[in-house]
Amino acid sequence: MLKIHSDKEQYAAYREHMTRLADIRNALALMQWDQETYMPAKGAGFRAQQIATLSELAHSMATSEKLEGLLKSLKDAPGLSETERKNITLNAADFEKQKKYSAAFVRKMSETISRSFNAWIAAKRENRFSLFEKDLDELILLKKEETAIVGFTDHPYDALLDEFEKGCTVKLLDKIFHDLKPRLQELIELIGQTKQVDNSFLLKKYDKQKQWDFGMKIIRDLGFDFEAGRQDLSAHPFTTSFNKNDVRITTRIQENDFNNMTWSCIHETGHALYEQGLPESEYGLPSGEFASLGVHESQSRLWENHVGRSAGFWKFHYPALVVQFPEVLHQISREAFYAGINMVKPSLIRTEADEVTYHFHVMIRYEIEKMLIAGELKTADIPVCWNEQYQKYLGIAVPGDQQGCLQDVHWSHGSFGYFPTYSLGSFYAAQLYCKAQKDLPEMEREIESGQTSGLLQWLRQRVHAHGRTYTSEELCEKATGETLNVQYFLDYILDKYRKIYQF
Amino acid sequence: MLKIHSDKEQYAAYREHMTRLADIRNALALMQWDQETYMPAKGAGFRAQQIATLSELAHSMATSEKLEGLLKSLKDAPGLSETERKNITLNAADFEKQKKYSAAFVRKMSETISRSFNAWIAAKRENRFSLFEKDLDELILLKKEETAIVGFTDHPYDALLDEFEKGCTVKLLDKIFHDLKPRLQELIELIGQTKQVDNSFLLKKYDKQKQWDFGMKIIRDLGFDFEAGRQDLSAHPFTTSFNKNDVRITTRIQENDFNNMTWSCIHETGHALYEQGLPESEYGLPSGEFASLGVHESQSRLWENHVGRSAGFWKFHYPALVVQFPEVLHQISREAFYAGINMVKPSLIRTEADEVTYHFHVMIRYEIEKMLIAGELKTADIPVCWNEQYQKYLGIAVPGDQQGCLQDVHWSHGSFGYFPTYSLGSFYAAQLYCKAQKDLPEMEREIESGQTSGLLQWLRQRVHAHGRTYTSEELCEKATGETLNVQYFLDYILDKYRKIYQF
Repeated sequence: MLKIHSDKEQYAAYREHMTRLADIRNALALMQWDQETYMPAKGAGFRAQQIATLSELAHSMATSEKLEGLLKSLKDAPGLSETERKNITLNAADFEKQKKYSAAFVRKMSETISRSFNAWIAAKRENRFSLFEKDLDELILLKKEETAIVGFTDHPYDALLDEFEKGCTVKLLDKIFHDLKPRLQELIELIGQTKQVDNSFLLKKYDKQKQWDFGMKIIRDLGFDFEAGRQDLSAHPFTTSFNKNDVRITTRIQENDFNNMTWSCIHETGHALYEQGLPESEYGLPSGEFASLGVHESQSRLWENHVGRSAGFWKFHYPALVVQFPEVLHQISREAFYAGINMVKPSLIRTEADEVTYHFHVMIRYEIEKMLIAGELKTADIPVCWNEQYQKYLGIAVPGDQQGCLQDVHWSHGSFGYFPTYSLGSFYAAQLYCKAQKDLPEMEREIESGQTSGLLQWLRQRVHAHGRTYTSEELCEKATGETLNVQYFLDYILDKYRKIYQF
Repeated sequence: MLKIHSDKEQYAAYREHMTRLADIRNALALMQWDQETYMPAKGAGFRAQQIATLSELAHSMATSEKLEGLLKSLKDAPGLSETERKNITLNAADFEKQKKYSAAFVRKMSETISRSFNAWIAAKRENRFSLFEKDLDELILLKKEETAIVGFTDHPYDALLDEFEKGCTVKLLDKIFHDLKPRLQELIELIGQTKQVDNSFLLKKYDKQKQWDFGMKIIRDLGFDFEAGRQDLSAHPFTTSFNKNDVRITTRIQENDFNNMTWSCIHETGHALYEQGLPESEYGLPSGEFASLGVHESQSRLWENHVGRSAGFWKFHYPALVVQFPEVLHQISREAFYAGINMVKPSLIRTEADEVTYHFHVMIRYEIEKMLIAGELKTADIPVCWNEQYQKYLGIAVPGDQQGCLQDVHWSHGSFGYFPTYSLGSFYAAQLYCKAQKDLPEMEREIESGQTSGLLQWLRQRVHAHGRTYTSEELCEKATGETLNVQYFLDYILDKYRKIYQF
């Protein structure tokens, strides 16, 4: 008997396969979330092994013959909708890439990452890069191996960029950063010559519980659905999602620093709003996934900077903040507060940097990663190189590895090629925000009265709803009318800081 | 080329397979833990699906041809140690049983359980059994189907008992409960005729945070390793383990009830100490698993009742308790406190019952389950039957389903055949404790001075170290010199309550 499978039947089988794969990947995400929030210390060993097992399993499902057959038979199938066809095309490309990795390589990578993560924690605690060096070196070797596995045309680093930002290359980034660098340096110089801004009041005593409560209120006000997510504490703030109905963010709170909690809360909320806005019915499929890390970061940085660090936002929220922390803030005017939270000053820590110097933190990491992957820098030489670059670009001396090359978790996770997406995210954010301002003439006034739902709806429609069916560049063009144009970002910061610093 | 696999090589392959299976099962356990502690409400739907996917996967690994081949080739292999041989024998039996279940049945069961669990939560909240009835009925149908799948000789319920307590049967339980019932009734009558004990001070205001802190101190004092585990809050206290280095317990705290937090803390600690005491090197193998639910419960009830509700334990801990809650306890003598925490009084809620009436709660559930599985009771008739039995055996009127047949989570989890292990656990506990007293003449005095490590070490050697290499009965005989003898339990409660109630 000949059994005819219709396109729709085949698509349903493909969809079921991807749903199960997503279930496993989301079990993995839960294990990772737990590892950084609640897992007891001794649990690390078995957890690393459990993560490796599920990673291998996910990989085997993502590269199975069954999936290959389904993707082949669905390629150019006439019975599919446009979105369905896009899913098949995108998935086929994922499949080709995944198939290049052997199961043994995936397991080895997963285990090396778990070990590196623990080594990094110890090294950072002890303020000694050397404790991390051996594991990091192994990881870099594996990442180099990966560039050969994935393949590249111009620069091996392109193979790693591709994982986070499809189509992004060294050539492209070199051009963007090359153009940007002198203009940012100019701006920093200009700012250095004007009257200085005080932000010392942000480093006074802020009760931890009250900070937590204030952060929770902001998150809720911005539209985060606490029935479909939660916030916890962790050493390093992050967002993770197990599906659009369970999106989790974390923050950290320091008693003598109002910045840490506040900006991480708003930043991670930006990520979370994107995840909570993805189409539920497309779970496990490209059309239900975020577009790229750069686009993800555009959401976090849009909310953090364009909303959270705006004068309008605090016009609404500042009075309530003063009520919470009267001892510290009763003599600080809203204008002084606004200037303080936007102070531009070269500093050591990327996540605490202002919107201007931030990109030097990214560019320094980018240059180091490129050299490491190209074999032009030895792992052991990272600290010296790092410290030289911070001196050169930001004019500051790094007192130790903890606040230097050990500050970020990314390398211990094997995430090379990730940092540039932070800058790309800022540039996309500026371009998106500018378009939203044009489309929504009432938006600024709404933000001043505590309403951000107009902006959220705009982002839901223009960005979130599309999942990964467009590339970053296509999405950017669709949402704003043109592909990435860094000028929006430059105009934005120039205008903002000219007003604050009055030059 | 002929490739010869040595027994040791084959065993290593078997072990690797079981390790990966355990990794998946422990990912499942984490998803379930998260579901009851931190998961946001809307996450329930996808979580149920994710759990079903991993359950199905675990089932397919537990019944794979690969495992079958390994078990066959290792059967009676001469190159194995005694423990290795036992693992193969036990695993082969597990395999035969697991193979009887189809993947579709496993998935259906998992999904029905997730749905039932949510229905039960709603029904309990609304105090209406009818909201749970439909899902429970489906679940009971599936459990009946399961009895046919597993097979049985005498009573279909035996097939379900086997899941929790190998070798346990209706015949055996009927005999035990038949003998026990009149003797417990007699004791309750005797107690009812003597002077009454006051426990009203346990239902005064106890600050929640202070309760939490006190519970945490007790848990630590009893030897729970907080580097290898944690405690959280949940609606229903439970213990789960992802490996011996990550064992998690939960408790609940009510402001006007000192009992709830205290006994759940000590009870779950008993479970956790067992898990933290299993041999790490045997992860994923029968020799690294708990012996049976009855034995697990023997550990929780030994610590809860024989230690936690003993006069000696509070000789040490009571002064510190009075310091924590002076308003409530400053006029309560230690003797009055001891009597209060041991008050015997028929009550509605199993988990809050004293050591004597407790077993009626179990026997009632046991009788109802037997009838449901034998088709002698309709699901819809559970509430009426339940209420009649509570009237008959405990002389109390059930005010509503919430405090009646909806009080326990077990049925919503599909756990039929589980409740009897609570009574068996108490009986094993009494027998083990009596033997420990004989073996450790200093033990009682140590407990009076806050030292329980001697007892813990004894349990580690006699019970924990053996994993599942012995059946409950073998383990009981090995540890105490004889198989289960309920007389130890009867002697213990008779002696204890004679002193408290002075009859």
